Amino acid sequence: MPKIETILTPALFHLYEQGIEQKNVVVIDILRATTTICVAFENGVKSIVPVDNPQEALQFRKNSFLVAAERSGETVTGFELGNSPQDYTKENIQGKNVALTTTNGTRALRMCKHANRVLIGSFINLEALANVLIKDHKDVMLFCSGWKDKFNLEDTLFAGALAKAMLGSFEPLGDAMFMAMDLYEKAEPNIAQYLQKASHVQRFKTLHVESDLDVCLQMNISDVIPECKEGIISI
Amino acid sequence: MPKIETILTPALFHLYEQGIEQKNVVVIDILRATTTICVAFENGVKSIVPVDNPQEALQFRKNSFLVAAERSGETVTGFELGNSPQDYTKENIQGKNVALTTTNGTRALRMCKHANRVLIGSFINLEALANVLIKDHKDVMLFCSGWKDKFNLEDTLFAGALAKAMLGSFEPLGDAMFMAMDLYEKAEPNIAQYLQKASHVQRFKTLHVESDLDVCLQMNISDVIPECKEGIISI
Repeated sequence: MPKIETILTPALFHLYEQGIEQKNVVVIDILRATTTICVAFENGVKSIVPVDNPQEALQFRKNSFLVAAERSGETVTGFELGNSPQDYTKENIQGKNVALTTTNGTRALRMCKHANRVLIGSFINLEALANVLIKDHKDVMLFCSGWKDKFNLEDTLFAGALAKAMLGSFEPLGDAMFMAMDLYEKAEPNIAQYLQKASHVQRFKTLHVESDLDVCLQMNISDVIPECKEGIISI
Repeated sequence: MPKIETILTPALFHLYEQGIEQKNVVVIDILRATTTICVAFENGVKSIVPVDNPQEALQFRKNSFLVAAERSGETVTGFELGNSPQDYTKENIQGKNVALTTTNGTRALRMCKHANRVLIGSFINLEALANVLIKDHKDVMLFCSGWKDKFNLEDTLFAGALAKAMLGSFEPLGDAMFMAMDLYEKAEPNIAQYLQKASHVQRFKTLHVESDLDVCLQMNISDVIPECKEGIISI
């Protein structure tokens, strides 16, 4: 039976890097990059190129890309789009290409580029993603983007939720994976309520983007499986 | 109200290092270094010097120290003592000085040496330790030693248990701290049973040292507060 593990923050990625070419990696940044990417594809974006910094994103403007940049939770001045899923409406992004940089998610995406497959995970496509991973029957690494290299609750909860959804088909491996599943069990009765204590939810309140939380916690409303290949995310 | 936070593994220490001089740090390596250190002081050891490697430990033999070394769970060949609390009986260590190196715990101890105080935590001295921290009324950092830089369940559970024991006097801070408290809540009905899935408990079975688990999970049987000052642990 293939194994499923989790990396709690990008600062721990090097401990799991060996053999990553043989594994399917799910990049997780629930609040909000990977949720936003799923929403964008659900709404018809053509491609998303994750880049390291706003400067690099701006280079893409000359190729008629929309440029999107977020730092510390806020849209960077001069960019059309930030990191809120609510920015990525059909009107805004259908048929378009987007260059995107965020505080945590896009960095994680680039760190694991040597994986067998790099898939984008969020609560909105959880079930569809589980089905693809089960069908692939390869070892899976759930890569939490965290917050500036620190552990966060929301990415860990999603890792736990996804692992639990695949328990019959995958063997969980390592203390972090077991913790994530147990934490999800604790939070499952009311995830939005559970996450009120999360640092990033507190940050949302300061930034007046609380409504993004509900958007990011919608379950299984999309079948898109965004995948990053050679630096470009598409479906 | 002072704050209480947790560092999940030494690989994340740098993210919390700033301001550490103002904080009391509790070093946690439940299986087994910090439990063993507490047991050793309970049984009358005079001092313990944590060192980085077996070679360095051997240098202390000329000063009539006992030398103790563990790597990957096993006593290193040629050393009197390993990392099992059951090695540290009154007969073996009363009145003696010990130089100790272990896979994870002694490294963590040396990393946080600039803290206001560096205290040794384990389930056996949990309550006594909580009382000292409450009395000191300073911010607290619970530093989990982990396993070779990875997250582990047992150190996190202890961090959660200690934070919960001090909730009226400290404000928990950060997602990792909240997770640890919730995890402890889940495990509390039967910690030994909960930890059966922990990687290091699996490792204990391979090494035939399962009996150490029960020793390390005894609650509040000691009032010793070992403290590391200028590279030497004493009470």
